[in-house]
Amino acid sequence: MIKVGIVGGTGYTGVELLRLLAQHPQVQLQAITSRKEAGMPVADMFPSLRGRVDIAFSAPDAATLGACDVVFFATPHGVAMEQGPALLEAGVKVIDLAADFRLRDPVVFEKWYGMPHSALALLDKAVYGLPEVNRDRIRDARLIGLPGCYPTSVQLGFLPVLRDGAKLVDGTTLIADCKSGVSGAGRKAEVHTLLAEASDNFKAYGVKGHRHLPEIEQGLRAIAGHDAINLTFVPHLVPMIRGIHSTLYARILPEARETDFQALFEAAYANEPFVDVMPAGSHPETRSVRSANTVRIAVHRPGGGDQLVVLVVEDNLVKGASGQGVQCMNLMFGLPESTGLTMLPVLP
Amino acid sequence: MIKVGIVGGTGYTGVELLRLLAQHPQVQLQAITSRKEAGMPVADMFPSLRGRVDIAFSAPDAATLGACDVVFFATPHGVAMEQGPALLEAGVKVIDLAADFRLRDPVVFEKWYGMPHSALALLDKAVYGLPEVNRDRIRDARLIGLPGCYPTSVQLGFLPVLRDGAKLVDGTTLIADCKSGVSGAGRKAEVHTLLAEASDNFKAYGVKGHRHLPEIEQGLRAIAGHDAINLTFVPHLVPMIRGIHSTLYARILPEARETDFQALFEAAYANEPFVDVMPAGSHPETRSVRSANTVRIAVHRPGGGDQLVVLVVEDNLVKGASGQGVQCMNLMFGLPESTGLTMLPVLP
Amino acid sequence: MIKVGIVGGTGYTGVELLRLLAQHPQVQLQAITSRKEAGMPVADMFPSLRGRVDIAFSAPDAATLGACDVVFFATPHGVAMEQGPALLEAGVKVIDLAADFRLRDPVVFEKWYGMPHSALALLDKAVYGLPEVNRDRIRDARLIGLPGCYPTSVQLGFLPVLRDGAKLVDGTTLIADCKSGVSGAGRKAEVHTLLAEASDNFKAYGVKGHRHLPEIEQGLRAIAGHDAINLTFVPHLVPMIRGIHSTLYARILPEARETDFQALFEAAYANEPFVDVMPAGSHPETRSVRSANTVRIAVHRPGGGDQLVVLVVEDNLVKGASGQGVQCMNLMFGLPESTGLTMLPVLP
Amino acid sequence: MIKVGIVGGTGYTGVELLRLLAQHPQVQLQAITSRKEAGMPVADMFPSLRGRVDIAFSAPDAATLGACDVVFFATPHGVAMEQGPALLEAGVKVIDLAADFRLRDPVVFEKWYGMPHSALALLDKAVYGLPEVNRDRIRDARLIGLPGCYPTSVQLGFLPVLRDGAKLVDGTTLIADCKSGVSGAGRKAEVHTLLAEASDNFKAYGVKGHRHLPEIEQGLRAIAGHDAINLTFVPHLVPMIRGIHSTLYARILPEARETDFQALFEAAYANEPFVDVMPAGSHPETRSVRSANTVRIAVHRPGGGDQLVVLVVEDNLVKGASGQGVQCMNLMFGLPESTGLTMLPVLP
Repeated sequence: MIKVGIVGGTGYTGVELLRLLAQHPQVQLQAITSRKEAGMPVADMFPSLRGRVDIAFSAPDAATLGACDVVFFATPHGVAMEQGPALLEAGVKVIDLAADFRLRDPVVFEKWYGMPHSALALLDKAVYGLPEVNRDRIRDARLIGLPGCYPTSVQLGFLPVLRDGAKLVDGTTLIADCKSGVSGAGRKAEVHTLLAEASDNFKAYGVKGHRHLPEIEQGLRAIAGHDAINLTFVPHLVPMIRGIHSTLYARILPEARETDFQALFEAAYANEPFVDVMPAGSHPETRSVRSANTVRIAVHRPGGGDQLVVLVVEDNLVKGASGQGVQCMNLMFGLPESTGLTMLPVLP
Repeated sequence: MIKVGIVGGTGYTGVELLRLLAQHPQVQLQAITSRKEAGMPVADMFPSLRGRVDIAFSAPDAATLGACDVVFFATPHGVAMEQGPALLEAGVKVIDLAADFRLRDPVVFEKWYGMPHSALALLDKAVYGLPEVNRDRIRDARLIGLPGCYPTSVQLGFLPVLRDGAKLVDGTTLIADCKSGVSGAGRKAEVHTLLAEASDNFKAYGVKGHRHLPEIEQGLRAIAGHDAINLTFVPHLVPMIRGIHSTLYARILPEARETDFQALFEAAYANEPFVDVMPAGSHPETRSVRSANTVRIAVHRPGGGDQLVVLVVEDNLVKGASGQGVQCMNLMFGLPESTGLTMLPVLP
Repeated sequence: MIKVGIVGGTGYTGVELLRLLAQHPQVQLQAITSRKEAGMPVADMFPSLRGRVDIAFSAPDAATLGACDVVFFATPHGVAMEQGPALLEAGVKVIDLAADFRLRDPVVFEKWYGMPHSALALLDKAVYGLPEVNRDRIRDARLIGLPGCYPTSVQLGFLPVLRDGAKLVDGTTLIADCKSGVSGAGRKAEVHTLLAEASDNFKAYGVKGHRHLPEIEQGLRAIAGHDAINLTFVPHLVPMIRGIHSTLYARILPEARETDFQALFEAAYANEPFVDVMPAGSHPETRSVRSANTVRIAVHRPGGGDQLVVLVVEDNLVKGASGQGVQCMNLMFGLPESTGLTMLPVLP
Repeated sequence: MIKVGIVGGTGYTGVELLRLLAQHPQVQLQAITSRKEAGMPVADMFPSLRGRVDIAFSAPDAATLGACDVVFFATPHGVAMEQGPALLEAGVKVIDLAADFRLRDPVVFEKWYGMPHSALALLDKAVYGLPEVNRDRIRDARLIGLPGCYPTSVQLGFLPVLRDGAKLVDGTTLIADCKSGVSGAGRKAEVHTLLAEASDNFKAYGVKGHRHLPEIEQGLRAIAGHDAINLTFVPHLVPMIRGIHSTLYARILPEARETDFQALFEAAYANEPFVDVMPAGSHPETRSVRSANTVRIAVHRPGGGDQLVVLVVEDNLVKGASGQGVQCMNLMFGLPESTGLTMLPVLP
């Protein structure tokens, strides 16, 4: 059994981690820490866990966490880089759901997250936790920076046409028009995500610049193997709880007009347990992956022209966060990659 | 033109007041105060008002408000009883959307609102702003305590069977099972009303005791003319923005079994401009009054038995708050009661 | 492995059955029939099942279904009583999710469902599939009439105070004010359940009489062991997908005023795997049981008076339909009752 | 008073027309026809109109409609081209909310709508009812083909950069990523728009080709004054009732890099009563125009690069349909353009 600790855990990625880990056959949940809620049984905050998760939030404690095999940080940005180093020194593996170990360049990190990076020595050791790109490195990693929710969907959607310097689309005019359910904003007391504000409403946000843009561009450049990648990223807020739908646009290069993009995508993901390339002409729905670790992708070329349109759906809390974390954990501990991640989506 | 000021106004009853007053043909909006947002144009906070409401929030200022004919308090409980007395002395009429002047007994007020009442001398002068009960007194009032959203619907639903000591139902076993949209909780940054918490979900709350219970019982006793009234009140939170649906239960007394309750209700409200008694067998929907000042009521007697079931719908922000305030203002200034309140509901 | 067939299966209880059975460790899905959709892969209609449920809808066929160990009817009312008898003769067990075998009196059935009962001989053999009431009889049953969604929640909520003739509440003035998500209306093309009709809206329906009323009264009378039970049942439509919240009202009898109802409920359900009595003062939320087979109950006595208020939540598609069917199947085949039903609720 | 008739009127554009016309100070509603619902009072179908719209649906009748000054067709595609010619001959003006008179080329019409055009002689006389483009022609028109909901938002969003052959963006690689509330699908009994299907869900649809694509391209070419316009149009379904959000993408031409696009848009719409260009950096929300005839637009240039992003919101039932129809009617009858269209948006 893998002994698991969670730092944080009062937010949506935290409760989703608890749901997944409590049902994972190889996991023993050792501790979940929250300074603010110390002493409160987890199931009092999240009654869905009553009778199944019996531990209480505890004050952060180095000894308890140090006795774990792996610790997840489901915390605000900046916590993992403070507390992670000591755990790593104690031999504990660390998986950060926040942004501390996503960006390789600390200057970029500071620009977008408004704080200096305090664990520079670890940046080189951290592995970006996107198994479809970095599977082998994840197996050997001791520190994982999990991708953001939007970046997971956008990178998986563009991967087949950019990989290894492929000359299929114009990488400098990529567009990602992304739509997210409100849980992506976290379980924070804020006005703009109240039901009375966000329901029966639709809007874009962060058009001037969103933290996930540099992460996506970094990832796409790594996938492509070159830096000639530019993305326009426009996120939108959808009046629903879970789910991301990314609508991706790329101009097909003249020399690639004969490409069978459907076949290309199917081949790229033929062996991936959590990426489902749907039949030509499909329109994936976010609910088709609700509560599951699956990404579904459809490829379109409207009117047979030069505009490639890729539709990607994921559950932002699962493949976009906690599920991907469990997937990485499975790889890091030599378990079958799908262990504990086989629950079917809940539809309707 | 009536010169109107608003104290508060950054919440939902505030923006609804602005919507109604900006379209009222006899109103000139003089000032809207918010200490926190002073200087911000109102339309920056509520873009729906762009081009139509040009004033900015201003710091509370006795001179400005004192020059108004009437001031609405769309504030948290406790503000009107602090600031209202000076305005009244200056000859300004006051309409409070909060609870300061709803309850006649200051001991009850303190018990349920957790603060002592600071304007005891005004309690006798304040008129409870429910025109269907207190129309004449409202015309002459200088200080109005507007009913809560739930109390409006429950009182109007029980009024025909309780009025003037009628012996029709057992007043000691009344039940009000009420359901409200989330805007009833206000525009406050709180976790439990986030879309990701309250959407696709349903729950009761406050079953042990809710502030509107003493207000409703006080109102029903005044309507009945005696004190033998007891109510069980169970409010619920509905995943929608606006609307209250009250399902009311009363046991018909043996001597009243022959009563034609449909006719009774129709007669009771025949001349009311904002109460619509629907045909027998109807099920009113909250959306049928969305954004309008109308209450719709249907009367049922399932199986022809002794259980009377009354269904009442209202828009909690209009007839349940701001619209009722405008209705009272019209009465206080001798205008036709429906002035500025004739917009049709928005459906769908 | 239990060989399972499904008749129908294109509706919400059907896809929910598929979700549960596909993850059940002791089930082999043999056939799912739909005359209209014969030939269509199930996963084309429900993409959430892609890669996990590989069979296609087939035309109803006696031989295929006759080779199953058990057949579920997820069909409109009236189908199971036509096709069930032949299957039973062939030694197949039958579980009907529709109403054909819920009501014991064929006269009552015909009155409420508008068709004569065509399998009168089976009415005596059918067992009402509510394990918390009929566990032992279900073990031995060959034909199950599964309870309706509302009846499950109402019967479990009243059971502790009515069981075996208990003199605790006035059984003749019971009230069930129930609220259901829209999936309860089924996956049928109808106007009143369109998102643009039912969203941001709330209404009661069927106040004059709902088919679940005679079923609930029959069940409560069986639980009580006498016929002095009368219920007022008012269902409402909630703008959400899944979930039922029943708010139950009963007048406490004078001689029962000293009863500790919290303890009574806790004792009644102490050994039930799927009924969770929450701590005193709780308000269960429907989302706390979303996609799970659990019912959560809270008991209140507002103001310490004589009105008992019981709050019950369930997922109408799981404990209110398909999950309860699987629970019965487990009992009928001697499996641990929770087999395949341990997935945690999905929250948020 | 303008005597108005409505053909159809049982759908969402119909009830919205009724809401607007019933409040229009210069309109007298003469007749509303529906073969299927003849005899039913309109307010029985739409209780929001109780007490305000007293007429009943009537069977279609040439004499009644022929006595009107103007007749709106709120019907499925194909009805106006059948019944319109006789009305026009009788001197009645006609405004079609369906697609019969949107497309100038009958071959294109037949391709996308699956029926031959039966009123070819009128195609030249019909005016496309987009006042911001065709105001003068609308004043003189006797037959209006109202734009579709998506086309209104997309054309108004691209107009300032395409008008009169402007060389500002690459017109051959335009993208419109559009999101619509479910009322855009109409009040039709269909499975895919049920609340239990469309709620808590997001998907694209019609990526291979949508009927609004040829209409938008025709309109943009007319605005530009040339044919070098190609659009990729991807519509999506949002779990909300009303509202369209169009996110528009255009590549800025090298020679236009110094353009002040914010100023360009503000100038283009400076005198338009129903187009609101928001301050730089804004993110318009659909609810900010809910139930109003206003379009709000924001212009972005993320990172100061060559990608122009235009955000447009409208209420699909008002400016996207019925409100625009009333706006055209006002122009056709010499009334101030905003008559009856000044109601403020309903927010929240």
